[in-house]
Amino acid sequence: MPVGTLASVKGVPQDVLEELDVQILLGNTYHLFLRPGVETIREMGGLHRFMSWDRALLTDSGGFQVFSLNDLRKVSEEGVAFRSHLDGSPRFLSPEKAMEVQIGLGADIIMAFDECTEYPADAPRLRASIELTLRWAARCKNYFDAHQHEVPWAREQATGQWSARPTRLPAGSTQALFGIVQGGMDPELRRESAERTIRLGFPGYAIGGLSVGEPRELTRDIVLSTLALLPADQPRYLMGVGTPEEIAQYALAGVDMMDCVLPTRAARHGLLFTSEGRVSIKQARYAQDPGPLDPACGCRVCQRYSRAYLRHLYAANELLAQVLNTVHNLHYYLATMRKVRDWIRAER
Amino acid sequence: MPVGTLASVKGVPQDVLEELDVQILLGNTYHLFLRPGVETIREMGGLHRFMSWDRALLTDSGGFQVFSLNDLRKVSEEGVAFRSHLDGSPRFLSPEKAMEVQIGLGADIIMAFDECTEYPADAPRLRASIELTLRWAARCKNYFDAHQHEVPWAREQATGQWSARPTRLPAGSTQALFGIVQGGMDPELRRESAERTIRLGFPGYAIGGLSVGEPRELTRDIVLSTLALLPADQPRYLMGVGTPEEIAQYALAGVDMMDCVLPTRAARHGLLFTSEGRVSIKQARYAQDPGPLDPACGCRVCQRYSRAYLRHLYAANELLAQVLNTVHNLHYYLATMRKVRDWIRAER
Repeated sequence: MPVGTLASVKGVPQDVLEELDVQILLGNTYHLFLRPGVETIREMGGLHRFMSWDRALLTDSGGFQVFSLNDLRKVSEEGVAFRSHLDGSPRFLSPEKAMEVQIGLGADIIMAFDECTEYPADAPRLRASIELTLRWAARCKNYFDAHQHEVPWAREQATGQWSARPTRLPAGSTQALFGIVQGGMDPELRRESAERTIRLGFPGYAIGGLSVGEPRELTRDIVLSTLALLPADQPRYLMGVGTPEEIAQYALAGVDMMDCVLPTRAARHGLLFTSEGRVSIKQARYAQDPGPLDPACGCRVCQRYSRAYLRHLYAANELLAQVLNTVHNLHYYLATMRKVRDWIRAER
Repeated sequence: MPVGTLASVKGVPQDVLEELDVQILLGNTYHLFLRPGVETIREMGGLHRFMSWDRALLTDSGGFQVFSLNDLRKVSEEGVAFRSHLDGSPRFLSPEKAMEVQIGLGADIIMAFDECTEYPADAPRLRASIELTLRWAARCKNYFDAHQHEVPWAREQATGQWSARPTRLPAGSTQALFGIVQGGMDPELRRESAERTIRLGFPGYAIGGLSVGEPRELTRDIVLSTLALLPADQPRYLMGVGTPEEIAQYALAGVDMMDCVLPTRAARHGLLFTSEGRVSIKQARYAQDPGPLDPACGCRVCQRYSRAYLRHLYAANELLAQVLNTVHNLHYYLATMRKVRDWIRAER
């Protein structure tokens, strides 16, 4: 899933995302909550209509983003008080508020509001954290079950009045709420978090709390052991991972969904993924290189432009560098996932 | 002519420019001379191939850009010594050097190296300036006539080896050099500059030295009086003008070519041209406006996105704001020019 933090994949118009065959985008609740605000998006008929995207959307819960604020947040049983990174204004997110906001945004898949534990964390801290996340998960589910149809556009959609808004979910249901497994780097706590989250009952489960500074091998161990505990016949979503090699490995191991800012953020910094390895396009060695960025790539960028031109755009700080680099990296990630799907089908 | 200063219209991929039906782009010699440098572009087969643009290109001479440097330049009979705005390094452009650079860039139309006079300027200053520009125009023509085929890719092109490089000029000719009329705001000096430039003999003529701080009505008077002095059966190019209303008026008055950064630069600052007037998309009044930017516009942006979404992208400083705003403004300018052409055809 490419990341469209503020209802936009930075620099890439929606028709280009469609051409790249993007099937689902991730939006960040924390950012959309601050700008333009959920009221605006509700008024505009939900996130799909607001950004003109009729394919699937997933919103995170804001938990991880708030976790990243560090000094600006205060966690209590009720929820998290924090200050906006934009203007310092005081804000509050609770399980109920996170549900209210995500129901208002109207993504197809929404996420439970969890506490993401810092790394490293000691045993008492981890225990307290998974207990809090489990209590919050139950509150999320209760609120969601009671309120999921309470958005005006959901009712209008049911009458067929707003035909542009797609329905990718079963009739009568507008959204799916996924639970999140936490437990830090402790396999036993992960097992307990997984079992108790599954007992609450969600249509899909995510593995959260990784990519928080731990070594890569540890991430891998926790992912693989946690994955084995989640129902294989429901979507299993690994949050915030990873490199092209990692997403291929995890998908082959059974992960169904992943999101990562790496392809888009790296692109804006001139780091490009190719079949011949990483290319840092800023390097002077590409200044007069007439070849395509990736000779094996079929994307619009590789079909049309030279490394020399891409290097020039990046060195001259031209906007087009960020646009073209992002298109290529997204194509590379999506092509990687297509290959993985082909492999999986062939194995069967 | 949209402006593609550094071999790119900021934020807009070449295929989108083609879809917008852009027929000719302007590149800035001064900027390309500094980055990536003419040697790189020569090595890459000229500006068309470098940026993957097989429609027409025009490069300015660098004269106006150097003129804008103010404190960083020193004009002599030989040429202009200046310092790069990027790193302060000393550089030099003369009529011969400007020709050498533009021949190397390989645009279809290249411009004589002129001195653009500041506004206001007194009579002796203006007299000296048009004399210098006329001596430089003769030197440009001499150099161009002697050297125009001396680029490696021109020879390769002649053998058909590089098929991607288009030829929009008569067989045997790779480029056209246009002369530039100066003379400040003095109609008599404009007349003298025009007559003596025409006597030198160019395939097209430009009106330069306007939009340098003078009142709009004065620009208009000088344009109209100078235009009448130029051969109507050759291209007449008004440099650096203007608003949609101005380009329509000047085109109807007989101007054949214009370039202006206004549509692209204004777009990046959230100022959008519509059939209902200017829209400053940052305004809060558009925050929940579900309508298209311009109901009468057929561009991809107006067909797909709401004012509310465009306002959000701009307010959140999203890259996509600059991309979409630029696409719309270019479409608006090009549609204006298409209407003008239709009017002119109908009059005949």
